[in-house]
Amino acid sequence: MTIFFNALHAPIGAHASFTLGCKGATGGMGLELGGPASEKVYIGVETRTGGSFEALPFFDLDDDEALRYDHANRHAHKRLLQPFADKAITRDFQVATDTWQAGDLTLRIISPVMPVPDPDRASAAALRFALCPAVLAQLTIDNRQGRRPRRAFIGYAGAKRSDAMREFDHLGQRGPVGIAHGRSTAMACADAGVFSAQDFTMERILDQRLEENRHFGLGGTAALLVDVPARQRRTITVALCFHRAGLVTGGIDASYWYSRYFPDLESVARYCLAHADDYLASARQADRDWAPRRLSADQRFQLAHAVRSYYGSTQFLDWDGRPFWVVNEGEYRMMNTFDLTVDQLFFEMRLNPWTVRNELDMFTARYSYQDRLHFPGQANAHPGGISFTHDMGMANRVSRPGYSTYERAGLHGCFSHMTHEQLVNWVLCAAVYAHGSGDGRWLRAQQTVLERCLLSMERRDHPRATERNGVMGLDSSRTADGSEITTYDSLDASLGQARGNVYLAVKCWAAYLALERIFTQLKRPAAAARAQRQADRCAATLLAAVEADGTIPAIVGEPCEARIIPAIEGLVFPWVLGMDQAISPRGPYGALIRALKGHLLAVLRPGVCLYDDGAWKLSSTADNSWLSKIYLCQAVARAVLGLKQDAVMSRADAAHVAWLLNEPNRFFAWSDQMTSGVAKGSKYYPRGVTAALWLDEARRR
Amino acid sequence: MTIFFNALHAPIGAHASFTLGCKGATGGMGLELGGPASEKVYIGVETRTGGSFEALPFFDLDDDEALRYDHANRHAHKRLLQPFADKAITRDFQVATDTWQAGDLTLRIISPVMPVPDPDRASAAALRFALCPAVLAQLTIDNRQGRRPRRAFIGYAGAKRSDAMREFDHLGQRGPVGIAHGRSTAMACADAGVFSAQDFTMERILDQRLEENRHFGLGGTAALLVDVPARQRRTITVALCFHRAGLVTGGIDASYWYSRYFPDLESVARYCLAHADDYLASARQADRDWAPRRLSADQRFQLAHAVRSYYGSTQFLDWDGRPFWVVNEGEYRMMNTFDLTVDQLFFEMRLNPWTVRNELDMFTARYSYQDRLHFPGQANAHPGGISFTHDMGMANRVSRPGYSTYERAGLHGCFSHMTHEQLVNWVLCAAVYAHGSGDGRWLRAQQTVLERCLLSMERRDHPRATERNGVMGLDSSRTADGSEITTYDSLDASLGQARGNVYLAVKCWAAYLALERIFTQLKRPAAAARAQRQADRCAATLLAAVEADGTIPAIVGEPCEARIIPAIEGLVFPWVLGMDQAISPRGPYGALIRALKGHLLAVLRPGVCLYDDGAWKLSSTADNSWLSKIYLCQAVARAVLGLKQDAVMSRADAAHVAWLLNEPNRFFAWSDQMTSGVAKGSKYYPRGVTAALWLDEARRR
Repeated sequence: MTIFFNALHAPIGAHASFTLGCKGATGGMGLELGGPASEKVYIGVETRTGGSFEALPFFDLDDDEALRYDHANRHAHKRLLQPFADKAITRDFQVATDTWQAGDLTLRIISPVMPVPDPDRASAAALRFALCPAVLAQLTIDNRQGRRPRRAFIGYAGAKRSDAMREFDHLGQRGPVGIAHGRSTAMACADAGVFSAQDFTMERILDQRLEENRHFGLGGTAALLVDVPARQRRTITVALCFHRAGLVTGGIDASYWYSRYFPDLESVARYCLAHADDYLASARQADRDWAPRRLSADQRFQLAHAVRSYYGSTQFLDWDGRPFWVVNEGEYRMMNTFDLTVDQLFFEMRLNPWTVRNELDMFTARYSYQDRLHFPGQANAHPGGISFTHDMGMANRVSRPGYSTYERAGLHGCFSHMTHEQLVNWVLCAAVYAHGSGDGRWLRAQQTVLERCLLSMERRDHPRATERNGVMGLDSSRTADGSEITTYDSLDASLGQARGNVYLAVKCWAAYLALERIFTQLKRPAAAARAQRQADRCAATLLAAVEADGTIPAIVGEPCEARIIPAIEGLVFPWVLGMDQAISPRGPYGALIRALKGHLLAVLRPGVCLYDDGAWKLSSTADNSWLSKIYLCQAVARAVLGLKQDAVMSRADAAHVAWLLNEPNRFFAWSDQMTSGVAKGSKYYPRGVTAALWLDEARRR
Repeated sequence: MTIFFNALHAPIGAHASFTLGCKGATGGMGLELGGPASEKVYIGVETRTGGSFEALPFFDLDDDEALRYDHANRHAHKRLLQPFADKAITRDFQVATDTWQAGDLTLRIISPVMPVPDPDRASAAALRFALCPAVLAQLTIDNRQGRRPRRAFIGYAGAKRSDAMREFDHLGQRGPVGIAHGRSTAMACADAGVFSAQDFTMERILDQRLEENRHFGLGGTAALLVDVPARQRRTITVALCFHRAGLVTGGIDASYWYSRYFPDLESVARYCLAHADDYLASARQADRDWAPRRLSADQRFQLAHAVRSYYGSTQFLDWDGRPFWVVNEGEYRMMNTFDLTVDQLFFEMRLNPWTVRNELDMFTARYSYQDRLHFPGQANAHPGGISFTHDMGMANRVSRPGYSTYERAGLHGCFSHMTHEQLVNWVLCAAVYAHGSGDGRWLRAQQTVLERCLLSMERRDHPRATERNGVMGLDSSRTADGSEITTYDSLDASLGQARGNVYLAVKCWAAYLALERIFTQLKRPAAAARAQRQADRCAATLLAAVEADGTIPAIVGEPCEARIIPAIEGLVFPWVLGMDQAISPRGPYGALIRALKGHLLAVLRPGVCLYDDGAWKLSSTADNSWLSKIYLCQAVARAVLGLKQDAVMSRADAAHVAWLLNEPNRFFAWSDQMTSGVAKGSKYYPRGVTAALWLDEARRR
């Protein structure tokens, strides 16, 4: 397995990442990007014999910018810098620390993995600590065997066109020494003896004969440097900072929450460096918390990788003084895509449940709508109900009220509406939030919305109560004459259709169950009874669909060849909600639970829903499998259906790890949609934090 | 001659340009760039027969973004849009209006060409009008022959990675309808019936079957559209807006001056559209003022093109409430490069003399320094004096006090210091500013600086007064053991050397003359006499250098083969300063004037300083000729040395126009450095406004 894969090192809520790990100029300081920055990063040290330098292989030695100014090429220079040999390099990859060792150099990158306190309750100091838009790097040079001082360096060449590289004002006389790219990104250090330099290339910086030429402003490369004396070991601590001031969104006027505390890169650097010890202690704790021994190495790797990618997509905004929590959708950068929210739910509940409430409130206030309904091929003649949009915007553009960026009318596939699914997602997120947070006040305030949700779900089943079977039967007028899809729209046609979809049906069953309990708590027995009845109908419909081979087709009520693993996905909710009876094989829905287990065991076979290498294949009819959903279904299989983490499961994990480390995928860090092991879509993606459910499995054992 | 060349349409002081004219996705809305934005721009109309569309050829029909989301490619669509045939298109290119006509479509782009009022004296209203960061476009559809309504459009696909395309909030319910790229650029229109739309491609926008799909937020392309009824002719007015809020520079904290008046793109659009008539009237006046009949078509073309490129480089900043006028250096984006300032001086004096004062004050306050001096190969043993840096920063990074971004020590060529030249440039700019503006108060306040400048120039000649010859003899300690260069550093070695350089020597003579007059005015007769003596010495040294063939070598006092046209460049200053006696062939320096005329006539020959096609070749030994300097020297040749705008001169003009329209150069609009007619450096450059001197030539006839 290669160690040269990109991973994110992301502050929380800054939509930023210092991404690093692939060879070449593939990483760097990315701010508001849907992929790695693809900048040259230089982290290295002089050789023991001196006069030449070795660095981690995160750069290319390419053309010299000097030629733009002087095409007579009178400034050619010698090769001074080479990458360390691969075999000289090791990497220790954890959720919050990522440690590279090569020769006498050690680089430890330290990322925040910690709760974001509820801004309605927390102190500014606590928020400042969690949201400081920086990660830390510690560069250690062990020159105890060295007989001469050796120069070490960390630097980069910013790739954005509009702003130059620069050094901090007054070269650090008023604070840390720093190098920056415009006002967007910076590396800074407050340790003694560290100085900054700038030139066309890193080699020119290392070759600077005259001290007065250190600060060559035309140069697109800048670095922090330090000389480590002979016989000494020295560590410097560097803040890798991001910043964007002022209003950043279109559609609404919002700024980064952190800009309340940090007016610029320099203030970020000062704070981060002053609190470096606290960040390091927090990171070590996170490394322990997120890698319990009961998880295998492959599981721990995937969980750590996924958590990192999640944080790079987080963007915590301040909208006229109100908190607005946004998770961007990886390479697509759609904001708070609801069918991601419902998967990232478990992770957010573990760390900062208020973010779920914040997202739900925004969906209700700005991104809910009321529709009408139609049977296939017919007019939108039937009353509908409330639902919620697919997302809240894209790439800093907040969508207009009531509309997502993604959905459009008149379609039967990709880009159609997800009305029913997002309705169910709101119910399930609300139930999990209320249960997990114990926030009864919020739940009571949602009573009307919850009642509208129940009515809306019923009407999407059938206009007449007597004809209902618990499963979606009508499509939204938002689709015009089209039909709704699900989050699996791009997987295959079998999963794209929402009507009769077994994945959605089981989620509906879970939503009805959750509503039943909530309405009981809220003392609305009639509503509770209606929800109960719908859950029963849904279960009955699903049971009636079981085929002779024990499988349930992907679409019930219509001819369908496809068999899908996510039939079991919806079981995660009663599990997480602690509804042990509902998911017991001997409980009131025991027949459904046993049927779903039978289905899973029947499809988890080579040629059906297993690839040859043991990887899980979500659909029997599509070569397009999503790691985030696999992680979730693995947790359900074990925690709800009683499957073991056996050799078959471990073989699957190994195959999934191999996907992530597959050569074409390494650049994009954690990606979701894999076609024969190659990420074809959903790259650089946040959704993999479904693996956080693995930490909860012990609760059921 | 092709009409398909890029030209800038730039607001004043916004470092922005709507660049357009080359075929393909080569233009677009560029903010803070050193070249065209390379975005797709769509401006077109439905065909008379309907159902398909023609547009000006500023786009590519390339890959469809939809495939990123749906790699099964279920969304292929038909070709609806094609570019107009070349022969159907005409262009009328003026300094402030640029009018394209194709089929029934007319596009007129209207740029501001007007003085920026002195911010210390002008009203906010006047500043707001001059500095509004927008240009206007008028799109006219002549459907008087049409039997059906036809849809017209103007739109673009923003290329910046971090922000999405969007439509204005509430789709124009509170103001103009607009499309925008993040918070950086926008197109907006307040005319009735205009609507906005967004989709993956322009063809998808034109193919939108359902009105509810018009606002597809995932789409990277957005447009304003209008339906023109049959039998009607309709014009819509569109504001092309730029904006960057808050602090934008590193090194110092400065914002755009316009951000005082305009908080965002929407406010820019509202203001610009409300004042469209005033902008149009102003542009028509500028078209007349900048294209007098006495200039040839080739001259008018070059002047208009150069003025446009200049404005794209202007960046008027607000530094803690103080005005900071910046001209960026084209593709290099160095800020206020002094050896450009001194050439752009004549243009700025014509429009807004206060900008010259502002630049000079900044050079004195932040970018002056004191050095020591050395003879070649010796130590820096001699006292030096004041001088000024090469520039003030680069690409939004304001350089640290006392240092440019460009200069470095220890060199003998490109990137070395220009100490003596920038010293002379300060003196000459100050003299021209004081003379042209009549700002005696400012001049009196500069007395100490001017005295230091005189002393500094003398010392750079020779440490001992008796040994002085009026020409630079010592190099600055800023070069360490290197030697100074001139602005012509990258032209050829003959011009790179500052010591003994004939170009610099004639500028020194002009500077001494100017100082003599100033000190006489300031009643400092001793200083005036010293300046006079140095001018005389310089003239004598130059005269002594005249060779038998009537030429003066590029370097006097050393063996030198090169002969250069810019030997005459310095004559521009006494001309502009109205020192008619000094430049009279019968005046006190008549021998020098006659010698320089003899030199020019001797070198303006094929094989020396003329290319085969009649273009001017600045140096006999380098294939690298700069249009800005040619323009300046052409003006000097005619206005000072009495050459005529004859067939030879016109042939040169035609050759210079051909350079600008040469295929490899069209993309970069106006460029300066030409090697065999190809722009190898100094592209997208502001310096061509030396052509403004052509407007002053009549004064001498």
